Amino acid sequence: MTDTLEFYFDFTSPYGYFASLRADALAEDAGRRAVWRPFMLGAVFKETGNAPLADQPLKGDYCRHDWQRMAKMMDAPWVLPEPFPIAALAASRAFYWLDDWDSGIAKDFAKAAFHAYFGEGRDIREADVLAAVAEPLGIDPDQMLPAISEPAAKQRLKDETDKALERGVCGSPFFIVDGEGFWGSDRLWMVKKWMAGNRRW
Amino acid sequence: MTDTLEFYFDFTSPYGYFASLRADALAEDAGRRAVWRPFMLGAVFKETGNAPLADQPLKGDYCRHDWQRMAKMMDAPWVLPEPFPIAALAASRAFYWLDDWDSGIAKDFAKAAFHAYFGEGRDIREADVLAAVAEPLGIDPDQMLPAISEPAAKQRLKDETDKALERGVCGSPFFIVDGEGFWGSDRLWMVKKWMAGNRRW
Repeated sequence: MTDTLEFYFDFTSPYGYFASLRADALAEDAGRRAVWRPFMLGAVFKETGNAPLADQPLKGDYCRHDWQRMAKMMDAPWVLPEPFPIAALAASRAFYWLDDWDSGIAKDFAKAAFHAYFGEGRDIREADVLAAVAEPLGIDPDQMLPAISEPAAKQRLKDETDKALERGVCGSPFFIVDGEGFWGSDRLWMVKKWMAGNRRW
Repeated sequence: MTDTLEFYFDFTSPYGYFASLRADALAEDAGRRAVWRPFMLGAVFKETGNAPLADQPLKGDYCRHDWQRMAKMMDAPWVLPEPFPIAALAASRAFYWLDDWDSGIAKDFAKAAFHAYFGEGRDIREADVLAAVAEPLGIDPDQMLPAISEPAAKQRLKDETDKALERGVCGSPFFIVDGEGFWGSDRLWMVKKWMAGNRRW
């Protein structure tokens, strides 16, 4: 696994969305492959005692403003979806169901789901929205939707989330390079330095 | 006030310490003057519902590691002080007492206090430590120490903290440029861009 950049995120995380727009290029520039890993941020919050940023007085207002200026700066499509935040379980389960089949299609699905939620404000918990996200990628919703409500799909996401917690994932986005963890979309420069081998630290 | 970069911090904040090593140069490079403003981070936590990073499961471990690698990367002196975190009221009150007299000396004191705490692990709540920090700067501890236990000095820090909260300061460090706020030592690049006038956002 030394040739990878592991990218942990939750589909309801704006900073996860911003990082998702950079993750693949970041890895490729370093001759690595980005491995995408959605997890349940709520499980991390339970562990750390944190609440969603948007729900925190002061920080909520700061972040709503910050997301907007960050999107403008990155030329990234942006709306603050309603409802927000959400428990993006279905999208995450769909990701792993696809990932077992083809990690490239799983990534394309993740990008399309992020875009649907934060680029267009569509509620990606809804079956018809997930179907609309999946279809243009050649994914059959009539296969995907029943599959992701199976106990196996639910367990898979739980297992991946447990693994993330064990590995020290403490927020979204979170990157792991050769065992070294980096939290936050503001740390892409540090991930880059680490991958380049500039490690006096 | 358009020629300033306001730098809000708490003396017990490691990321505030790291930012303090850059704040003046960042402002000067943009033809501005950094205005330092310590505040009580505890009052912000009360508002946002946050706990100190070090006390949070998962995030505490992450941050302890991150502070160390950040210090190595910046070639900054670093020890995790014991006790940590602290209520750095005395140092903050001393800062404002000095600031009313000479903002340059107040900054020198702040830098020395940060260094004593995070560079050498000395407990800057202690009167003898504060005296040892102040004396080499030509500050008379026999004047300073009684002054900062006066009700006026306590009220001043409370007022500055209230003002910070009103202005949306939601963590340490926090920068304000012409009314625009930036939270975190990871956002110096954004502060720089804003000051340079690259504001498509």
